[in-house]
Amino acid sequence: MVELETFEHDSISKIGGKYWFHEISEEAFPGQAFSLEVGEILHHTQSEFQDILIFRSISFGNVLVLNGIIQCTERDEFAYQELITHLPVMAHKNPKRALVIGGGDCGVVRELVKHDIVKEVTMVEIDSMVIELSVKYLPNMAKYHNHSKVNIVIQDGFKYLSDLANKNEEDKYDVIITDSSDPEGPAEEFFQVNYFKLLSNSLKKDGIVIMQSSENIWLNLNYVEDLKQKAEKVFPNVEYSQCYMPSYTSGQLGLLIATHDTTNDLKKPSRTVENEDELFRYYSGKIHESSFVLPTWADKQINGRK
Amino acid sequence: MVELETFEHDSISKIGGKYWFHEISEEAFPGQAFSLEVGEILHHTQSEFQDILIFRSISFGNVLVLNGIIQCTERDEFAYQELITHLPVMAHKNPKRALVIGGGDCGVVRELVKHDIVKEVTMVEIDSMVIELSVKYLPNMAKYHNHSKVNIVIQDGFKYLSDLANKNEEDKYDVIITDSSDPEGPAEEFFQVNYFKLLSNSLKKDGIVIMQSSENIWLNLNYVEDLKQKAEKVFPNVEYSQCYMPSYTSGQLGLLIATHDTTNDLKKPSRTVENEDELFRYYSGKIHESSFVLPTWADKQINGRK
Repeated sequence: MVELETFEHDSISKIGGKYWFHEISEEAFPGQAFSLEVGEILHHTQSEFQDILIFRSISFGNVLVLNGIIQCTERDEFAYQELITHLPVMAHKNPKRALVIGGGDCGVVRELVKHDIVKEVTMVEIDSMVIELSVKYLPNMAKYHNHSKVNIVIQDGFKYLSDLANKNEEDKYDVIITDSSDPEGPAEEFFQVNYFKLLSNSLKKDGIVIMQSSENIWLNLNYVEDLKQKAEKVFPNVEYSQCYMPSYTSGQLGLLIATHDTTNDLKKPSRTVENEDELFRYYSGKIHESSFVLPTWADKQINGRK
Repeated sequence: MVELETFEHDSISKIGGKYWFHEISEEAFPGQAFSLEVGEILHHTQSEFQDILIFRSISFGNVLVLNGIIQCTERDEFAYQELITHLPVMAHKNPKRALVIGGGDCGVVRELVKHDIVKEVTMVEIDSMVIELSVKYLPNMAKYHNHSKVNIVIQDGFKYLSDLANKNEEDKYDVIITDSSDPEGPAEEFFQVNYFKLLSNSLKKDGIVIMQSSENIWLNLNYVEDLKQKAEKVFPNVEYSQCYMPSYTSGQLGLLIATHDTTNDLKKPSRTVENEDELFRYYSGKIHESSFVLPTWADKQINGRK
């Protein structure tokens, strides 16, 4: 165990006799910060790829932090994990093969195996340390990391997709979920046109991809618009969705979803699932549809060209 | 002007050479805090009722803080002001007379006067200092404080409603918006069954009331459920809605809306407005409907009894 009193980290300071973790990033969200009171430092290490900090917070359960940015907290992770997973899976008519790029906390894998229709889940994570630590400190997120449907590959996602591009249609995927960290760090190349091309080449004809948008509509609407336009250079059918996430910047997360299938209205589930309200805590068919309804000013800028 | 270097306030501390305002409340949201970098202290005073702090932030414009809690920032105030105003006004078929309890920043008044159908707006604010300072430091919010349709009364809202209860139907209101601060402070009595009774007695038969729920579904779902049940002791038709608000706790604000009219589906606008997308930046008919769609776990607990 790490002693809090003697632990030194740029993101942790003492206010009024208590220790707080501050998520401060001049580059990503200047002038604003979300803070969590720290109960205990569970683990801190510098992996081959990034600074990994895991602490027990006073009110959000255990928290995983990569390079100073909160990746998930036990209290609200289900919102993000469910929406990024169930939007593409439910928008697809028959999603048998799913690929996760990143997602080392295994939360997306946990959501994918809930679907009987999904037969095969491959997760490609660059940093094995994130998986190991999640199994230990985020057991409810990582509980299906060794599920019989799940195959975990420790590799750079970009490399994995490059190799896949030349393969046959049956080796490609119905759903590809990019669950990466923000562009500042190892995930930088996931937010470029080239990445959308790689995704496109790794998808079956009617396949669906989804990724987090890094910025959100409040923080940097121009960035979100730009990212959507990059996706539109590759995919003819692209939509932007968002969900409430108290522990993420601006209290929300944006998601970009795309497909080559122009007959598929991604904003609606294409199937129903029995016992939906027992399987899911955040997602429902109604949540699916409403997650695409943007405030007027953002809708105009992002979707106005339609 | 107040010198930042020598200014002392419980909510402001220096991190990495910069001054940050931390919204910390052991009582209201233990263990989590939103922080804004401070550019300049514009005003600080103790009014008859509360501690009032106004500062220029680095990234959210000017910020009004009462008793240490952020009331509004110039960057995102429109989300809250629009939803709390346009939900009841648009759900009502013919809202001629509107009453605002609280709302000293005059943002709700600004939204109300946008509607030609609204002929008369009364705002009852207990603390005249909040209005004066908003006119000076939040000019875009307070710009219609002296509009010809607007009548401002400096009085305790509870007292104003008590006097109204014995008056005739024509003196009562079509829409009553309670735009108060949280229960910790002068607004405490706004979150009790008695207050819903007072609102009920001040409404026309098909009138609609709305108020902020103080807590949100992530922070304290039991409190939200409890508040809704209090409202249901007085009103047969009560719904819970939420909007994205980056500068509020958990990045959102919850709203409780109620009416005696059981034929009115509050979740849908009952009218349309011309040039909706020019009048409003956040609100639209689609936003109206989707703001009532709650994540599954919260929907079950709050609306499950239906």
